[in-house]
Amino acid sequence: MSYFRPHIDAMAAYVPGEQPTDPRVIKLNTNENPYPPSPRVVEALRGFDPERLRRYPPPMADAFRAAAAEVHGVRVEQVLCTNGADELLRMLVAACCGPDRPLAVPWPTYTLYDVLAAVERAPVRRIDWDPAEPLPVEKLAAERAALSVVVSPNAPTGALAPTKTLATLAEELTGVLLIDEAYVDFASANALELAGRCDNVIVARSMSKGYSLAGLRFGYGIASDGLSAGLLKIKDSYNVDAVSIALATAALRDQDYAQACWEKVRVQRQRLRGKLERIGFTVGASEANFLLARLAEPPAQTIYETLKARGILVRYFDQPGLRDALRITVGTPEQNDRLLDELKRIV
Amino acid sequence: MSYFRPHIDAMAAYVPGEQPTDPRVIKLNTNENPYPPSPRVVEALRGFDPERLRRYPPPMADAFRAAAAEVHGVRVEQVLCTNGADELLRMLVAACCGPDRPLAVPWPTYTLYDVLAAVERAPVRRIDWDPAEPLPVEKLAAERAALSVVVSPNAPTGALAPTKTLATLAEELTGVLLIDEAYVDFASANALELAGRCDNVIVARSMSKGYSLAGLRFGYGIASDGLSAGLLKIKDSYNVDAVSIALATAALRDQDYAQACWEKVRVQRQRLRGKLERIGFTVGASEANFLLARLAEPPAQTIYETLKARGILVRYFDQPGLRDALRITVGTPEQNDRLLDELKRIV
Repeated sequence: MSYFRPHIDAMAAYVPGEQPTDPRVIKLNTNENPYPPSPRVVEALRGFDPERLRRYPPPMADAFRAAAAEVHGVRVEQVLCTNGADELLRMLVAACCGPDRPLAVPWPTYTLYDVLAAVERAPVRRIDWDPAEPLPVEKLAAERAALSVVVSPNAPTGALAPTKTLATLAEELTGVLLIDEAYVDFASANALELAGRCDNVIVARSMSKGYSLAGLRFGYGIASDGLSAGLLKIKDSYNVDAVSIALATAALRDQDYAQACWEKVRVQRQRLRGKLERIGFTVGASEANFLLARLAEPPAQTIYETLKARGILVRYFDQPGLRDALRITVGTPEQNDRLLDELKRIV
Repeated sequence: MSYFRPHIDAMAAYVPGEQPTDPRVIKLNTNENPYPPSPRVVEALRGFDPERLRRYPPPMADAFRAAAAEVHGVRVEQVLCTNGADELLRMLVAACCGPDRPLAVPWPTYTLYDVLAAVERAPVRRIDWDPAEPLPVEKLAAERAALSVVVSPNAPTGALAPTKTLATLAEELTGVLLIDEAYVDFASANALELAGRCDNVIVARSMSKGYSLAGLRFGYGIASDGLSAGLLKIKDSYNVDAVSIALATAALRDQDYAQACWEKVRVQRQRLRGKLERIGFTVGASEANFLLARLAEPPAQTIYETLKARGILVRYFDQPGLRDALRITVGTPEQNDRLLDELKRIV
């Protein structure tokens, strides 16, 4: 006997990547930024007024909203702050999808979407997307889904969907298009302009990767006024805390620091890709802060386990189409060299 | 035309109490603790290692779980940490309630439950509970709801449901019993023991009031292993951030400080109640950090508005059965005196 709804009993939870407690582990499995957050963030932390802990935070995270509007050139009303971008994705699936309102995604992509759809008993339509090919716009549009999600750059492939392609998709869709730009800070382009132009587009952003704040849980959406206002109704009243608002705002305002980090990651991404290919991996072009590296032998799972035993974590997905692949976060030059040394011994 | 599900379009959002930005306002409207958080919390804030911002936080908030298990004498597996207790309430309604799975509450109570039920299209069964009378156990059980919620001490009445009564209710219910103890730190008893004894009971706790951490967004549930494990499936992977975990843990571990604060609030509650009655209000006994004060004339809304104009916020609920009442958070002696002075002029 269960106390829960049958579909909750039947579903499986999302399994996040491992978070080891040993700080010596080289952690290239969950796409954290290898560089520390901005010194402005540390200042905001040290100078935070404890009186602001005692009181409820501003429900709409006004300080961050204002900063985001300024940095991105959008209106304050378009910005919706969330407890990590994951909360935004959950809210959007809950608001749009249901048993007769499917979710459509190019495949492979971020597997959290399957879990979020299962909570709403919404069918998931997966459209194969070979990262070497353009986004399958026609097939996605033909699904007439209540919500279509394009992660761009995509995880785990790293492929970027051009803004022009996404604009076409938004026009052809009858439902909402969520462009999940969690990794876009490392890319050569972004689709933010569509959030203002198309009333069915919402762009999700994260402070976790680009701003080295995965521990803080801060994400946000930029959308048309209609989408933002509708989502507000199902937001927890005080969903982001006062410390997070202050630190995320400080990070977003320090664009010089952030952009310098992104450039360092891009340089390392290029270098790591070349070296992995020399070892024998097939590595697709990536616009994110990770690479998807494929190899026939030894099996990817064996490589993953051997690396783990040697104190290096990468991501292995036990899923169709991904069992010959490892997703490797781009680390510091030293971390990447340690990884490459170990891989040379294994392969 | 809307992009959302029809029931999302049709529902109204929860309206939280006002959060003024002017620090001079005497804020007795959202039940914050009038005393600052523990000095241990400030130490944890100042000493927080920024490297922990860069990495994802431990998904289960291990440090806090361990502290809660120790402080409450429960097992670690029974503790589930959430982004404010509101997140726990939402998860529970989503997991248990639906169109044919009602939510039952004594009435009046915390109005967020109506909004959470609306998101799941679940009917809400309201059973009148006169705070001068015992909890209507038989009527609640007769509803055979998928989830029954007793806020204890109740908001906005301040009435505590005795543990024995809640134990009887838990036995008679066919569904889950959520005992929402957001205000229990100010009460003379709590029902925590039921969480270990009854497999259908979950107790919700908040760090917002008792530990002066409303700005931090940290709550937790204590339940049987079955309920905890089931809820985990719909939790956002990293739902509480690294800073919050550290600060909430420091606060919970400083029981001496917390208990001294609670006692000060209890003393003020008693004093404020007596003085409000002398002015002419009818004030029910309260085991929370607020009082529900009723008066025939002038109308409660007028008093609320006049106080607001004079820089004092209290809570007025424009709802059946509450239009002659004000919910007043117990403040510091100075804040309470300012309030009483103004009330003497108005009444």
